Amino acid sequence: MAAATKDDGARVVDLRSDTLTQPSAPMKEAMVAAPLGDDVFGEDPTVMALQEKVARLLAKEAALFVPTGTMGNLICVLNHCRIRGSEVLLGNLSHIHVWEQGGISQLGGVHPRTLKNLPDGTFSLEELRQLVRGDNPHWPVTSLVCVENTHNMVGGRVLPLSWMDELGATCRELGLPLHMDGARLLNAATALGVPAARLVRDCDSVSVCLSKGLGAPVGSVVAGTKDFIRGALRLRKALGGGMRQAGLLAAAGIYALDHGLPKLAQDHAHVRTIAQAVSDLGSKVIKVDLEGVQTNILLLECDLKYVGPEQVCKRLSEVTEEERAATGKEVIVRILPMTASSVRLVVHCNISPEDIPIVVEKLIYVIREFERE
Amino acid sequence: MAAATKDDGARVVDLRSDTLTQPSAPMKEAMVAAPLGDDVFGEDPTVMALQEKVARLLAKEAALFVPTGTMGNLICVLNHCRIRGSEVLLGNLSHIHVWEQGGISQLGGVHPRTLKNLPDGTFSLEELRQLVRGDNPHWPVTSLVCVENTHNMVGGRVLPLSWMDELGATCRELGLPLHMDGARLLNAATALGVPAARLVRDCDSVSVCLSKGLGAPVGSVVAGTKDFIRGALRLRKALGGGMRQAGLLAAAGIYALDHGLPKLAQDHAHVRTIAQAVSDLGSKVIKVDLEGVQTNILLLECDLKYVGPEQVCKRLSEVTEEERAATGKEVIVRILPMTASSVRLVVHCNISPEDIPIVVEKLIYVIREFERE
Amino acid sequence: MAAATKDDGARVVDLRSDTLTQPSAPMKEAMVAAPLGDDVFGEDPTVMALQEKVARLLAKEAALFVPTGTMGNLICVLNHCRIRGSEVLLGNLSHIHVWEQGGISQLGGVHPRTLKNLPDGTFSLEELRQLVRGDNPHWPVTSLVCVENTHNMVGGRVLPLSWMDELGATCRELGLPLHMDGARLLNAATALGVPAARLVRDCDSVSVCLSKGLGAPVGSVVAGTKDFIRGALRLRKALGGGMRQAGLLAAAGIYALDHGLPKLAQDHAHVRTIAQAVSDLGSKVIKVDLEGVQTNILLLECDLKYVGPEQVCKRLSEVTEEERAATGKEVIVRILPMTASSVRLVVHCNISPEDIPIVVEKLIYVIREFERE
Amino acid sequence: MAAATKDDGARVVDLRSDTLTQPSAPMKEAMVAAPLGDDVFGEDPTVMALQEKVARLLAKEAALFVPTGTMGNLICVLNHCRIRGSEVLLGNLSHIHVWEQGGISQLGGVHPRTLKNLPDGTFSLEELRQLVRGDNPHWPVTSLVCVENTHNMVGGRVLPLSWMDELGATCRELGLPLHMDGARLLNAATALGVPAARLVRDCDSVSVCLSKGLGAPVGSVVAGTKDFIRGALRLRKALGGGMRQAGLLAAAGIYALDHGLPKLAQDHAHVRTIAQAVSDLGSKVIKVDLEGVQTNILLLECDLKYVGPEQVCKRLSEVTEEERAATGKEVIVRILPMTASSVRLVVHCNISPEDIPIVVEKLIYVIREFERE
Repeated sequence: MAAATKDDGARVVDLRSDTLTQPSAPMKEAMVAAPLGDDVFGEDPTVMALQEKVARLLAKEAALFVPTGTMGNLICVLNHCRIRGSEVLLGNLSHIHVWEQGGISQLGGVHPRTLKNLPDGTFSLEELRQLVRGDNPHWPVTSLVCVENTHNMVGGRVLPLSWMDELGATCRELGLPLHMDGARLLNAATALGVPAARLVRDCDSVSVCLSKGLGAPVGSVVAGTKDFIRGALRLRKALGGGMRQAGLLAAAGIYALDHGLPKLAQDHAHVRTIAQAVSDLGSKVIKVDLEGVQTNILLLECDLKYVGPEQVCKRLSEVTEEERAATGKEVIVRILPMTASSVRLVVHCNISPEDIPIVVEKLIYVIREFERE
Repeated sequence: MAAATKDDGARVVDLRSDTLTQPSAPMKEAMVAAPLGDDVFGEDPTVMALQEKVARLLAKEAALFVPTGTMGNLICVLNHCRIRGSEVLLGNLSHIHVWEQGGISQLGGVHPRTLKNLPDGTFSLEELRQLVRGDNPHWPVTSLVCVENTHNMVGGRVLPLSWMDELGATCRELGLPLHMDGARLLNAATALGVPAARLVRDCDSVSVCLSKGLGAPVGSVVAGTKDFIRGALRLRKALGGGMRQAGLLAAAGIYALDHGLPKLAQDHAHVRTIAQAVSDLGSKVIKVDLEGVQTNILLLECDLKYVGPEQVCKRLSEVTEEERAATGKEVIVRILPMTASSVRLVVHCNISPEDIPIVVEKLIYVIREFERE
Repeated sequence: MAAATKDDGARVVDLRSDTLTQPSAPMKEAMVAAPLGDDVFGEDPTVMALQEKVARLLAKEAALFVPTGTMGNLICVLNHCRIRGSEVLLGNLSHIHVWEQGGISQLGGVHPRTLKNLPDGTFSLEELRQLVRGDNPHWPVTSLVCVENTHNMVGGRVLPLSWMDELGATCRELGLPLHMDGARLLNAATALGVPAARLVRDCDSVSVCLSKGLGAPVGSVVAGTKDFIRGALRLRKALGGGMRQAGLLAAAGIYALDHGLPKLAQDHAHVRTIAQAVSDLGSKVIKVDLEGVQTNILLLECDLKYVGPEQVCKRLSEVTEEERAATGKEVIVRILPMTASSVRLVVHCNISPEDIPIVVEKLIYVIREFERE
Repeated sequence: MAAATKDDGARVVDLRSDTLTQPSAPMKEAMVAAPLGDDVFGEDPTVMALQEKVARLLAKEAALFVPTGTMGNLICVLNHCRIRGSEVLLGNLSHIHVWEQGGISQLGGVHPRTLKNLPDGTFSLEELRQLVRGDNPHWPVTSLVCVENTHNMVGGRVLPLSWMDELGATCRELGLPLHMDGARLLNAATALGVPAARLVRDCDSVSVCLSKGLGAPVGSVVAGTKDFIRGALRLRKALGGGMRQAGLLAAAGIYALDHGLPKLAQDHAHVRTIAQAVSDLGSKVIKVDLEGVQTNILLLECDLKYVGPEQVCKRLSEVTEEERAATGKEVIVRILPMTASSVRLVVHCNISPEDIPIVVEKLIYVIREFERE
């Protein structure tokens, strides 16, 4: 598998992202076998099948296949905020606010107002109530609330179901629609052992990525009411996301839902194994918050007195002479910095059970090396 | 082939669009075999190969794969018009102006000013000069000129090379960049018997569709300078067009360039055969301008005194009892209205030589029927 | 008066624009005496009085004072096109399309589609019907039709009332709102001898300038339904047009409506006198289309074989030795080029009856001089 | 004076805002006497005089008169963020972010990212550094930093000069332009006893309101380099802020700078007197943070256990029977809620020294009444 291959003889385990997955042979077979049509004409049966499948999975009226999660979120926000002068309330660490180039403002003129993300990815509902705007020409019109589940920047943590319920009730009371950036929603559902539909029960729209942990090569799906999806289709066309024989990609998505979804629990177990090993080490240089390890993402906190994120990533991507001598192995673990003090590991379906002890061994070797320095 | 299948027993020839093509078995094999990576990380070798191939084909420094032609055009216009208050000059019948939901204004705030498209798809360079704005706060800043080649709304006609050269010289003199919507550029190059690079020699950016006559299922490529493509990549990300293992689609694109491009001449010959047959009929009800038949598109002009576009399309999609009796055949030809008085036929790589006499026979039968009425 | 003052001893008559008017002494007295308040708090009685006065004049429910005509039009277009993806149909020579920096796209994302302005400022209602979009994701949503009355670029011509009625019926039938850029609406009403309200009977919104022929220093008013004006107020705030003690300016506007409006007929008579004199001259160098002379604007058409607009304007702004000797006078007439072949004269309330023969004499002298060359 | 008039016999002192000021008789005389021209033609000498005066005052190359502070800020932000995909860093309590309808996103597509405003109106420069974006297609481009001085939402506090210097150095180092929303900049300069130019030394643009404490009826001025002001003029035109004989308003602005500016110190003294009196009272119901009282704004903090902002404002706007009997007076003080727990008083040039003890007496009476309840 591509994410764990030899590189100049070394074994490489690529944990930079769950977007790196390679489609498997049977997934490709499904793609090749899928009946196709021109989806711009609404004639691709496989796209329609995927859309119906996701709509059912999320218990929404309808769904729409889109090229990326960024477009999925952009379409949903712009669709809720169709009227000029709209404002959206969202977490200050949310992917939409931090990682999507400010597209909702840049392209859609939507004004973001941020709620402070708490360490578990939620925010204060009291703060939410305070920031909702009344009717005043000095103010934009509060038109949408967004959440992210699992929440990437806090380490893939799952929004508590009770909080989601409370948020849903609050939004209903305030008359505000609720969008969920569910790029990794199925990881959240897996972690909670709850159907995905339950997690988005109170959401007016959802976007779900097929090309992250599920292992499809390309694509996301947005879901909502039939009316909402009609508007989403118009926006997809305007943004240039209306593809032709997209059933090729949709077939991979269907396969991913059928075969990748059941395996997410294994990814979570792998992450927990790694996290436990690092935690057991009790290092002061690199720490892990076990409580926050809930899905397929692991944040390692660096104590900046000793070592920084860039340095950790660099060291893990190398094999020293000394290491080779000591371990008898050549292992490279590729990961990325997340914040100014943390690095992120993401486990996905291309990582096999055999990769995990190898990753653990490398991590422990490197952390101990940093401790000695 | 899907575009010519049985429908309730009838043989269906689908000439609604060249976007309807189904990927062939060997194209799918190329997709399955392609090496892949995460293109958002810049690691998909097949995407890179396609981009280099198209850059070479068009003799531009660099290229970028995008999900659709609409996104390709949108990216190019927004990239040239990066500064607020830009105006673009483009044909009043151009696809960008008429068929892309006004996205350049809607999402990019770019103000369009139209030049009157002449029957051959060109416009007056004198009018162009007159519409270029000077430095005046009452005016936006003229920032771009766009052309379309072949030009869809005038029936797939090819912009004359001499006119392109004159336009290029004019734009250089005026200091204006030039973008070509080359959705069907390779049809134009085929028709002129000239390398595509020659046709875009004076263009600062080009977008080319892989999913039209070339037969790929999804995707377009934009090309320009390295700097331009850097900006295009940022815009692709903002719009949500940055896909992951996009090499799957790029592989189809490479295959389409290798195998679909040489076959475009056949599509053109097919269209000419149909056009000639209709012309020979000398009908007053439905006419064809033979001079305008240059590539894979054919416009049939209806004399509205006798029949309208909707009626023609409807009749061609049916088989009457009388017709069955008279011809001994059940043939359905699917086409679409283009303007208030014309219908459009598009021939593509899923149409076989055997389909052509069948289409001609059906057309002649139906036209004669209209004449009798 | 400022528009007809001495410049190095010469008498200057400034006919460049009717925006150049200086407030008269009694107008200033009205400004000084006006009761004021903070209009952002809705507490300026003079602003409210002006708004009510204009609403009554135009027989609309409500009105809003805005700093400029450009903002008035921008607010109205954006207010009708509140939903992303809107398209407006308007004349290709209209002020909104040509002279307002493309603000409706630049700031509001509204896509313009142009109708060809005929020589009388109207456009074909048949063309209007053809350009209205149906429900198709490839298309923006046609959301507004705009007209301009009097129409500046065609020489201040008045839209025929019968055409306005027909347009109104067409828009109603199509379910499209109609906006009138009535910068010089009161000139149109004066020319037709019809109440202004009659001219905008079928318009859903109107903008009227106080600072053109009426003679107020600053400001325009937009009018429509109460709901429309509520939306307009929000947009005025967003654009930064919500001024404080704006009653000072509104007082000048009220004065202008009371005292400037009755004098517009005189401006029109002045223009006709000048036009007739030039026409009587029968020059081949500079011509006038008497039929098009309807209000306070006069276009002189240059025969480019002999002389161009820039040259005419330059010559009128000078006094030659020969001229001084021949006429015994030093007169400067300031005007501006309008198109590539025409110059524009605008008469306004700062031009006195005595200025007219002086202007005529200068014009005739200069035209004859050009003829001799 | 209008801000302290009789209302049903009661004496009304209006402290809702310093935008409520009425132009004085000599200010009106200055307006009437001012030489005027059409400022769109660049011919209004009084506007030019004001612009030069403000440019000198702030030691900037050039300045531009605009109708409002909101437009001034909007123009400056859009001018710095001319390129699509820009992000601005600004305080989460700043007027631009909270009170200007999100216009920078709505109309300009600029993405805001907020820094947490500290109680003194500053923010952490460390946080600023962390939020600056690198070169990554996932991110917008950090293009501007904004500050507000004095800062309205924290009670008119003055940004410490040392912090401004440090911010200036940081922005220079980061290559980021710095804009100051100086709606009440001259209050800040007065409070610090430092020339205004010193406070904006490191700012690339500044907007200053003439219609707040300075007492002019309408208008703001933005200042920057000549190049910046050229861009600002274009944006003013697009937004519809290019007024004609604007010298009328500019004359009031010049008068306000000459005569209102020296009186700001008195407003500050008045506020301090009121604040001290409330503080001396030592009430647990309504408190004042004396350290935060620095200019012409006073925040009274309500203890929500006893009383809320709405209730305080309402009570101060009434005279009870009991009160009339006890005080022998009928005084109404009009103020407004600021946050969920505070009310705001603003003193301005229409408030006379005699008003202050009256306000104090009323406040004390009402606070004591709340205490008894």
